[in-house]
Amino acid sequence: MVQQDRAIRTRRLILEAAASVFDDRGYDRATIAEVLERAGVTKGALYFHFASKEALALAVLDEHVLDIAVEPQPIKLQEFVDVTQVLSHRLCSDPIQRGAARLAVEQGSNHLDRKRSMISWTQFVEGVLGEARDRGEVLKSVVIRETAELYVGAFAGIQLMSQTLANRTDLNRRVTVLHQHTLPCIAVPAILAKLDLDPERGEALDAAIKAGALVDATAP
Amino acid sequence: MVQQDRAIRTRRLILEAAASVFDDRGYDRATIAEVLERAGVTKGALYFHFASKEALALAVLDEHVLDIAVEPQPIKLQEFVDVTQVLSHRLCSDPIQRGAARLAVEQGSNHLDRKRSMISWTQFVEGVLGEARDRGEVLKSVVIRETAELYVGAFAGIQLMSQTLANRTDLNRRVTVLHQHTLPCIAVPAILAKLDLDPERGEALDAAIKAGALVDATAP
Repeated sequence: MVQQDRAIRTRRLILEAAASVFDDRGYDRATIAEVLERAGVTKGALYFHFASKEALALAVLDEHVLDIAVEPQPIKLQEFVDVTQVLSHRLCSDPIQRGAARLAVEQGSNHLDRKRSMISWTQFVEGVLGEARDRGEVLKSVVIRETAELYVGAFAGIQLMSQTLANRTDLNRRVTVLHQHTLPCIAVPAILAKLDLDPERGEALDAAIKAGALVDATAP
Repeated sequence: MVQQDRAIRTRRLILEAAASVFDDRGYDRATIAEVLERAGVTKGALYFHFASKEALALAVLDEHVLDIAVEPQPIKLQEFVDVTQVLSHRLCSDPIQRGAARLAVEQGSNHLDRKRSMISWTQFVEGVLGEARDRGEVLKSVVIRETAELYVGAFAGIQLMSQTLANRTDLNRRVTVLHQHTLPCIAVPAILAKLDLDPERGEALDAAIKAGALVDATAP
């Protein structure tokens, strides 16, 4: 068990180092050598977990979609808002999220399959919006697939603009603006009135998630 | 005059070649040698117009903002919709627009100033929305600057997603979805009801603009 824990920690260490190299250099210019240096692990340890630079990049891209689990809310659309705000907050500091964001939007000369990140996020948003619709929170006019794709595309561009102009320090506010402009076309009025779109919410929720994770980790 | 015309044509030829190289390779991997080859001009001709690769990239980024002039409409917000649809259509085929799009969203390792493209587009959209507000077309709740920034960011991401998933063939439809989700929070109802959001509009408008430009060019 202890050995397995150590393997999980090493894998995470390598992933975070790789993500930070991808964030700084992009896929094409990233090297395994720099990942090894930042992670402080041996070549053998890295290749035990990841077969290639491409495998590292795909693992980073997979990780960032799975990585966000917010507290369940009475209103499903609030959970949707919360995911976007936690993600925005993490894009300021979390290496996995930052590296994945660059990989996902980079129009590279290589053959890295960037579709999967966009498709995974779209499926995730579709799932949340579909559940919100089943609970009667969504206007009948909404076509879930179209709305999900709109959100994924718009979010990708907004985080990129915020990154270019303000190193993402204003991303939470920009995401609130996106919600303010779109949720009135998505949520039924009674739900819309109850949604908390406060841009500060991301930081507080992220702290709560991390506190919860710490408690879990130390539980017997 | 003839010589000046030729210089303008040569400059355009070089710009289009450079944009197509930037589109294919990105800024870092683009070379002057490949631009010369695609443009079929001499090194002397290129350096007469552009001092460096950076100057070429900045010219491409400037050109794509200035390049779209749609027919004036009785409703200003219709002009705004029209610009986004013509731009979407051109992103499928126009080398300047394609090259500029990649340069603008690329998170490069170089020092190319990508802010100016985003700032120019934001100012452009702010100008159009401000005029629409002065004509009474915009809801009082709208903060023009925020809405303009939202549109520029969202559009950047949507074109990127469309490029990744469908080589931009569905971009006009995706932009219509963006309008459908946001214009109800921007336009007063009487205006909203009159807006034509048809995704096919981009192609028709672009053809009309080009036909008009041809007539102008052959006028005495």
